[in-house]
Formats: sequence, structure tokens, C-alpha cells
Amino acid sequence: MNFSQQLSSKIAMVDEYLEKYIPLRDNYQSAIYEAMRYSLFAGGKRLRPVIALASCELVGGNIKDAVPIACALEMIHTYSLIHDDLPAMDNDDYRRGKPTNHKVYGEAVAILAGDALLNKAFEVAVNEGLKTGVDPARLLKAISVIATASGADGMIGGQIVDLESENKEIDLERLKYMHLHKTGALIVAAAKAGAIIGGANEVQIHALSSFAENLGLAFQIKDDLLDVEGNQEKLGKPVFSDIRKGKSTFVSLMGIEESRKAVDKLSKDAVECLKVFGDKGAFLSQLAQYLIHREN
Amino acid sequence: MNFSQQLSSKIAMVDEYLEKYIPLRDNYQSAIYEAMRYSLFAGGKRLRPVIALASCELVGGNIKDAVPIACALEMIHTYSLIHDDLPAMDNDDYRRGKPTNHKVYGEAVAILAGDALLNKAFEVAVNEGLKTGVDPARLLKAISVIATASGADGMIGGQIVDLESENKEIDLERLKYMHLHKTGALIVAAAKAGAIIGGANEVQIHALSSFAENLGLAFQIKDDLLDVEGNQEKLGKPVFSDIRKGKSTFVSLMGIEESRKAVDKLSKDAVECLKVFGDKGAFLSQLAQYLIHREN
Repeated sequence: MNFSQQLSSKIAMVDEYLEKYIPLRDNYQSAIYEAMRYSLFAGGKRLRPVIALASCELVGGNIKDAVPIACALEMIHTYSLIHDDLPAMDNDDYRRGKPTNHKVYGEAVAILAGDALLNKAFEVAVNEGLKTGVDPARLLKAISVIATASGADGMIGGQIVDLESENKEIDLERLKYMHLHKTGALIVAAAKAGAIIGGANEVQIHALSSFAENLGLAFQIKDDLLDVEGNQEKLGKPVFSDIRKGKSTFVSLMGIEESRKAVDKLSKDAVECLKVFGDKGAFLSQLAQYLIHREN
Repeated sequence: MNFSQQLSSKIAMVDEYLEKYIPLRDNYQSAIYEAMRYSLFAGGKRLRPVIALASCELVGGNIKDAVPIACALEMIHTYSLIHDDLPAMDNDDYRRGKPTNHKVYGEAVAILAGDALLNKAFEVAVNEGLKTGVDPARLLKAISVIATASGADGMIGGQIVDLESENKEIDLERLKYMHLHKTGALIVAAAKAGAIIGGANEVQIHALSSFAENLGLAFQIKDDLLDVEGNQEKLGKPVFSDIRKGKSTFVSLMGIEESRKAVDKLSKDAVECLKVFGDKGAFLSQLAQYLIHREN
């Protein structure tokens, strides 16, 4: 399989299990499941679950064992977007070319759908994780990595810094801190948790973790570049939206040229981290290239 | 120790560890920790953690082993109150005599503080749970019970039914369904998870689970009675608030007299479930009495 086939196959696996874990319901809970599914199946890139599956595979693990934590990561990512889009937060009407969750279901349901996805992430990681037959201690370690990365000292910690930085001049150090937490933490957790499930040793976990940290930052700077250089139709959201919101971005602080150079440097550093895996690192290496050349 | 001393000692243990798990911070995350702590230390009854600790003790377990999951339950309960109080949800200004979280910190921070508490519940259950030395498989089973009870098929499932029932005539069956999920599920999970951590057998888990289900419903009907009969100062919130919001309650559907009888019957049933434990069941039995005679 070439890169594109490998990527499609992993995404298909994630979609299949998300569908299985969060099916449509026909009971008192149908409304919440509908809202959860709306955002979960709204065209996400499945970056975090793909990294988790690939990391598990790369260290010689059984890819199926990583499916529950991979899907959990996508649920956490999706809930964070639903809550981020709320009127009290970023107040966004569109995401990936579709009306945001609260625009369709109202604020109350959107808040609960976000809560339910975060909660479901841990339900799936634990309940479905147990069914895979992975050693419970290993499963707990992987869940620990994810829970820490998504919490107040990880992703949510980045979100609060983001919130406090609106309409303020912030420096590059603070911006980096914010993104290493807001976006980076969960991407790093995907690599680490997948590797742990796959039975990685410390050297492998460290290599994948560094790869993901570089990739996460490159990914974010690319996002900032797309906000000023991108095509609204391909992006599925208006361009210049960060600037209009008075948010500092890598582009606003470093300029376009330096931002492009940083993406290049970080993606090279990311690929460099994979050297220890030899040829087996090809998929993740190509994934990094794919992500920094994307148009949405 | 008499009942009141035992209760105080358990509450003190919960408070001590909540303080330890969620300390004040002096970094970029300080704002989110402050908001989390505001609601966490706003005078909650600590009902769920106390039940978890008592259930663990009752079946012969080491009470300290149940502290992480006990505190996790209180965090989940607290996050649900913060989000329930939001303008888009119940739009409440006061809770336990204090301004609600969003009134103090604004909606955006309140949403994130709720998210962070839910997330922290799983961080603590896993990370601190691992440190107790409890068998990982047993810990995972306890976390599974909690995650399922707090999610879309448990507590959040009850909240969505609640949301859909506002300003609507609903029947007693639907009201019961709502409360068994919205309040009951987490109380039952407290008893079950505590028992599992303590090494309970199936008969013991079943007995404690039935106890908690009866108690949870009695507790909710008592809540509805307090809404019409209570003292605003003691309650820390306005009376008749459910009725003003157009919510159906046990009192509005069954009347005061029948509601009182139901509380009485359910609490007797709850205590009956503890028979299998003999004298050791005294604390939980007295807890049930205490809860149905409370004034707030």
C-alpha cells in the first residue's frame, strides 16, 4: 500500500469504530447522540487517531488494540471544537464548511454534546480497551497519558491561555506555550498512548513524542498560514478569522516568510526523530509532509 | 465514633485530597484552577464521595484506596452543576448561597472549568488510583462504572431529558427515568465503584447498588419537597425555582403528601438493602436517615 492507501485504511478503521461506539439511538437519549455524531462525522482529518494507530503499529503492536484510545482521542478533539465554537468562547458559525454544533442544535445541547463526547472518550478507552485484552496496567498508562494531556495542565490549559490572550499583545513564548498545550499536547498524547498500547520501550516512546511535538507545532503554524493564505472554500471557514478576532498568531508575530521557514524546520526535525525506526517510520514521515502541504 | 463524627471524618478526608489534587497554581493555568476550586469548595454535601468511601469500608476494603475515585465522583458532580447553571441551560445565579461559577468568572471560563473538572476526574481516578497500589484490573472496573454512569447513557442522558422536558407536561415514568439518570446514576456508581475498589463480591455490589438507587430517588423527591417547603436561607437558593422554570417535579405530579410517603418508602427500602451487612451497615443506614431529614 502506498501512503495514501495506508492513510485511507486507517481513517476508515477509525470511522468504522466511531460509528460502532456512538451509534444512532432510538430512545430518550437520541437527541444527544445525534448532536455528538453531527460533529464527530463532520469531516475531521482524524489526525490524532491516525497517529495513535500508526505509533502502535510502528513499535510492533497490534493495531486493533489501539483503536479504543485512537477513537477516544478523536472524541476529545471533537468536544474541544464544539465548546470552542460556542458563543461565549470563539462564537464561530462555521466549522469545516458546516454550521457549528450550537447553530444546529442550540447552545444547551451543544454544551451537553461536548460534555458527552469527553465523557464517552473515557468510557470507550476503558470499556472497549478492556475488551481488546491489552494488559490492564498498560491500558491504564495509556489512558493516563491521554487524560493528563487533555486536562487543565494540557489542552484546557492552552485554551484558558488562548482565552486570556484575546485582544492582547502576547509574545512568541506565550504563543508557543499556548499551542504546545492547546493543540500539541493531544497530538503528543496520541503518539505516546499508541506506542504504549503497542508495547514500546522508553526510547521509542521518547522518539515518537518528540516527533509529535515538532509536528504539532508545524501543524499549528501551517494553520496560521492558511488563515491568511488559504482558500475559504477549501478551508470550510472564512479566512482572516483569527485576525478579525484580535488573536495573535505565528504569522502576526513572525511574518509569513519566517512562519514558512519554521514549518519547514519543524517538519524536518519531526522526520529526524523517526530515524531510530528506519524504514518503518515511512508512514509517519510521509504524514508529516502531507500535513504541512495541506490546503485545509 | 458516632454517625456525625464518622460523617465529618469522611468529609474531611475528601476535602483534604481534593485540596491536594486541585491546588492553587501560580502559572499560566492559575485562572482555570481558581474557577475549578471555587465550585469544588462551595459547600457541597460530598454525598457521592462519602458513599464511595463507606462502601469500600463496608466490604472490608482499605478506605484510602477509594479516595481517588471518591474525589473523582465529586469533581464530576461539580462540573455537572457548573454547566447546568449556565445561561444556556438552567440560567441560575445562585448555588448553595453563592453566585454561580459563570456569575463570578464569566461564561467562557465556567465552560472550561466544567470541562477541566470532568477531565480531572479521570486524571485523578487513573493517576492517583494507580498510586494506591490497587490491582489495575479492579481500578479499571471501578472507573468503567463511573464513566458509564456519568455519560450519555447515564447522568448526561438524564440532563438531556431534563432539557427536553422544560415547559412540557411529562408523566411520572419519564420524570423517574430522568432522575434515575440525572442524579441516581452517579450515586449508584459511587456505591458500586467504592465496593469494587474494596474487593466486594457480586452479592455485596448488588446490595449496595440497590441501596443507592433507592436512596438516590428518595434524595431527589426530598429535593423537590424542599423546593416548595424549604427555607431559602438554609437552601442557599430561591424556593419554587423549579416551578418558576416550568419544570415537572415529583411534587407537581404526585402532590406533597404522596411525595412525602414516597421518600419514606424509598428510604426504608434503601435501608432494607443493607440487611446483608448486619451491624456494619449502620453508617450508610444512618446516612439515608440524615439525608431525608435534611433542610438543604
